[in-house]
Amino acid sequence: MRGRVVYLRNPKRREVSAACGWLFSGIQTMKAGERAGAHRHAASALRFIMEGTGAYTIVEGHKMSLGAKDFVLTPNGTWHEHGIEEDGSTCLWQDGLDIPLTNALEANFYEVHPEDYQASNLPLDDSPATYGSPALMPELDKWDQPYSPLLKFRWDQTYEALQNYAKVTDGSPYDGVIMRYINPKTGADPMLTMGANMQLLRPSEHTKAHRHTGNIIYQVAKGEGYSVINGKRFDWKEKDIFCVPPWMWHEHCNTQSGEDACLFSFHDLPTMRKLGFYAEQALEDNGGHQVVNG
Amino acid sequence: MRGRVVYLRNPKRREVSAACGWLFSGIQTMKAGERAGAHRHAASALRFIMEGTGAYTIVEGHKMSLGAKDFVLTPNGTWHEHGIEEDGSTCLWQDGLDIPLTNALEANFYEVHPEDYQASNLPLDDSPATYGSPALMPELDKWDQPYSPLLKFRWDQTYEALQNYAKVTDGSPYDGVIMRYINPKTGADPMLTMGANMQLLRPSEHTKAHRHTGNIIYQVAKGEGYSVINGKRFDWKEKDIFCVPPWMWHEHCNTQSGEDACLFSFHDLPTMRKLGFYAEQALEDNGGHQVVNG
Amino acid sequence: MRGRVVYLRNPKRREVSAACGWLFSGIQTMKAGERAGAHRHAASALRFIMEGTGAYTIVEGHKMSLGAKDFVLTPNGTWHEHGIEEDGSTCLWQDGLDIPLTNALEANFYEVHPEDYQASNLPLDDSPATYGSPALMPELDKWDQPYSPLLKFRWDQTYEALQNYAKVTDGSPYDGVIMRYINPKTGADPMLTMGANMQLLRPSEHTKAHRHTGNIIYQVAKGEGYSVINGKRFDWKEKDIFCVPPWMWHEHCNTQSGEDACLFSFHDLPTMRKLGFYAEQALEDNGGHQVVNG
Amino acid sequence: MRGRVVYLRNPKRREVSAACGWLFSGIQTMKAGERAGAHRHAASALRFIMEGTGAYTIVEGHKMSLGAKDFVLTPNGTWHEHGIEEDGSTCLWQDGLDIPLTNALEANFYEVHPEDYQASNLPLDDSPATYGSPALMPELDKWDQPYSPLLKFRWDQTYEALQNYAKVTDGSPYDGVIMRYINPKTGADPMLTMGANMQLLRPSEHTKAHRHTGNIIYQVAKGEGYSVINGKRFDWKEKDIFCVPPWMWHEHCNTQSGEDACLFSFHDLPTMRKLGFYAEQALEDNGGHQVVNG
Repeated sequence: MRGRVVYLRNPKRREVSAACGWLFSGIQTMKAGERAGAHRHAASALRFIMEGTGAYTIVEGHKMSLGAKDFVLTPNGTWHEHGIEEDGSTCLWQDGLDIPLTNALEANFYEVHPEDYQASNLPLDDSPATYGSPALMPELDKWDQPYSPLLKFRWDQTYEALQNYAKVTDGSPYDGVIMRYINPKTGADPMLTMGANMQLLRPSEHTKAHRHTGNIIYQVAKGEGYSVINGKRFDWKEKDIFCVPPWMWHEHCNTQSGEDACLFSFHDLPTMRKLGFYAEQALEDNGGHQVVNG
Repeated sequence: MRGRVVYLRNPKRREVSAACGWLFSGIQTMKAGERAGAHRHAASALRFIMEGTGAYTIVEGHKMSLGAKDFVLTPNGTWHEHGIEEDGSTCLWQDGLDIPLTNALEANFYEVHPEDYQASNLPLDDSPATYGSPALMPELDKWDQPYSPLLKFRWDQTYEALQNYAKVTDGSPYDGVIMRYINPKTGADPMLTMGANMQLLRPSEHTKAHRHTGNIIYQVAKGEGYSVINGKRFDWKEKDIFCVPPWMWHEHCNTQSGEDACLFSFHDLPTMRKLGFYAEQALEDNGGHQVVNG
Repeated sequence: MRGRVVYLRNPKRREVSAACGWLFSGIQTMKAGERAGAHRHAASALRFIMEGTGAYTIVEGHKMSLGAKDFVLTPNGTWHEHGIEEDGSTCLWQDGLDIPLTNALEANFYEVHPEDYQASNLPLDDSPATYGSPALMPELDKWDQPYSPLLKFRWDQTYEALQNYAKVTDGSPYDGVIMRYINPKTGADPMLTMGANMQLLRPSEHTKAHRHTGNIIYQVAKGEGYSVINGKRFDWKEKDIFCVPPWMWHEHCNTQSGEDACLFSFHDLPTMRKLGFYAEQALEDNGGHQVVNG
Repeated sequence: MRGRVVYLRNPKRREVSAACGWLFSGIQTMKAGERAGAHRHAASALRFIMEGTGAYTIVEGHKMSLGAKDFVLTPNGTWHEHGIEEDGSTCLWQDGLDIPLTNALEANFYEVHPEDYQASNLPLDDSPATYGSPALMPELDKWDQPYSPLLKFRWDQTYEALQNYAKVTDGSPYDGVIMRYINPKTGADPMLTMGANMQLLRPSEHTKAHRHTGNIIYQVAKGEGYSVINGKRFDWKEKDIFCVPPWMWHEHCNTQSGEDACLFSFHDLPTMRKLGFYAEQALEDNGGHQVVNG
């Protein structure tokens, strides 16, 4: 029982089961009391909660409670399982994986946990309790994995961080007030192959266009607006998912005049940067804005 | 006008003006409306606020408001200045510097700011607004200094972090629930030569003894208790300062049965570790506790 | 005029023009006095000289003279060109590229040099003269590229290194006396995506089998013998090329009783390791040797 | 029996037994067949052979044969011992140590080997045979120490490296053709606290003056000339030792018109750089040359 998953099927990437480039995106739903068995694979995964209460993920014995707009990691090679508490409600989340890349590189494996579920006596939410505070780290930390010891990133803290940062920055011309989720122990991306961002567009903010290598899949966390991708306009509102494939011009607009809008995104830029393949270009013409064709 | 400073004079380290090893400690007080001119030096400095309201420090144009038990950096080579707002109160803080080390290595210099005070139009507290959130970093960060971009560490966040961590850890046998202030961009110590910790001793907690190379200067942030240092007992309560010189056995005890106690400390362990000089030993005898002689 | 190139076409990887996985291999020949124009691309390339005299490669203005069994880099994004001096002879070399990977990640670009050939007044072989000595580096080195400043690795030095190392090591159970070409400034692989090794099999040495993720393309530099790959025997002698695809068992045998044999190889293990996808397994059964089926 | 050692006593640094700043320099001599017992200490040491044959050093079981002008490491905390083979001749070398720094930081310890001498069945010169080749590293290297796995740097290779580099560089305006001994596995300095250089001054070359923090102790490896240090001229010839204390102007001159001159030097610049204390200034006046006063 894995809950119900539909995946975002890009007709041009159907043979590799990718939504965009080498990234997979699925929408999963589980009901109160449901629990999916533990497994692991070489592919890294992440999950962004869309709605519901009582969801949890257990990674290598660390159980994390999850609410709407929380972001959780299930890194490369880790035992992991998901479920909904008995007193929770039906939950919906987006699953992001690099499984198409892992398959393409012939590096994947898949294993079911020998005892179906992970046994653990670690306290609930021990990962954020240990690593989720600003600029403090346990003195005697023994963490030696290549991925972040902080496995869950809370929405309330993330949104507060964006609001604080917004007070003192002009932001990026292409992305507004944009922050990167990091491994707090190193400052690097939280997993080896994929990174994630949350960005805030101020009321009526309309960014300029740029393009770069790598794939980005967005999920609208708050508000409404549109993005122009290679000359075509895509309107969006909360919980919508859209993507920007490699080297396509893109710009974002918050159409609300009194509210900020927030976009969660995950991407393969860590892969592109590690391999020396990251390149970026700003649109010079037309004041930095695309001509909209569609 | 630099406010009034008394420094902690260790009779054995008088010729190098050190409180302990190669670390300087001073107590500084300034009154409302006072302001000391900007200067810079090769030595790194830090400050832990003991009491008062309205204190501020400006580092390279970044102005930070400071309350009791906040911790602020003025790293190696940076222009810095301190003062108290007109509507503040008389403040007291501990100054910690590696100036004895800098002098010993014949690397120090001292410069007064050509215009007496730094001019800046950066918003107040822009450093913590940008870098002071858990596990998030500006996507387009240009920070390229060897010290932390987060220059101020708030007491309320620090104490909350310790309380959260205390729920899920047994802590260190020698130090209780102890966390290290870090450079959030790298996970390293916030300055090249000195680090700082905050530790929480649970009600009635009595740690075991160990000893190590390097010097530590403690300031009691909360509660009361005692430490045994090389067989001698030193009682302490809030705002007291004490030190542990190299290779001396030390253990800590919170004598309150209903309250936690907190110790701020700064040290030269980053220097010791970078140079390969860190060594540590646990006391094996007597259940890990020293026999108290004095 | 690019000389003549044939590429090694793997029928299962035909649509991506790869010899193995995401690696391209071609055999190129040029005649005395021929010169191919300068170009650059996001893909990294390397070349292992098979025969002839007077070959040269120019990378970002650094011209390198090349003899048989020399190994030369043309890293990601660098202007490069090849040719044969007028007084040279027809040369043959293997070209290795990660162009299938670069294409798959939609990160490639291709540019012809605006002036057809690179102009440069750098002295011949300045790269090995500067960076090609054991454990010494220019004190004031300004190199800041992600690839090795040493662009050419001489066969005579490589073979001598293997002979020296062979005197003091048992070698690897799977690969004999095997060394990795490195970036001498960092100790890392010389390019971001691909690495290269030279290994020496002692007279009659027969290694044990293991398997791992990632692709390896071998070229026989000296001697003769065979490799068993997933149960099938492949005999080889000098200048032969063969490959080991991901997760296939492989072991090597030098069939000469009085001579060592040397295998050059290049691979995508740096990519696999950076992304967390490297995995390896030793064959336990049958004394570590495969049963040969073919 | 430790051989005979005289140490270079700087009257201003007598109380810390330093030749310059926090560096110790001694001249040691041993006769054929002599052998000093194994010991270890927190201080790092290095040795530059001045004359004689048959010298050896054993570091953690790795025995290295040493000839004139070879440079050998005995890093922080390693068991080491020295001696002269029975068929050797009386040898002379310079010992360089950071023991004054180690003492100042109260980090030193000293231990005699429990069995007087190290037992080892590692082959002679296994360290240079494994790590002493240009840009090649064992594929399966397990080295995990913070110091260089290459413990011996041969004079013939070093001099050849300088000659090669001299053909393609203008060199440093302050130091001529200067190279840094490195840890070949990382490109960093070979020990944590001290580095070493060899520099070649071309016939009649006279460098410009600069000054910097940190201490340098020179030994003339070849030729003759003079250095001007803070306005005073010091003539030197092969085997002479001289030093440049912190922030003193210095320039070098090879007075031979037909021969190059070579200066070996060791220094504490790694310490200064790690702690953020490195600073440097070029002399602007008088064409970059000091006025000689003495």
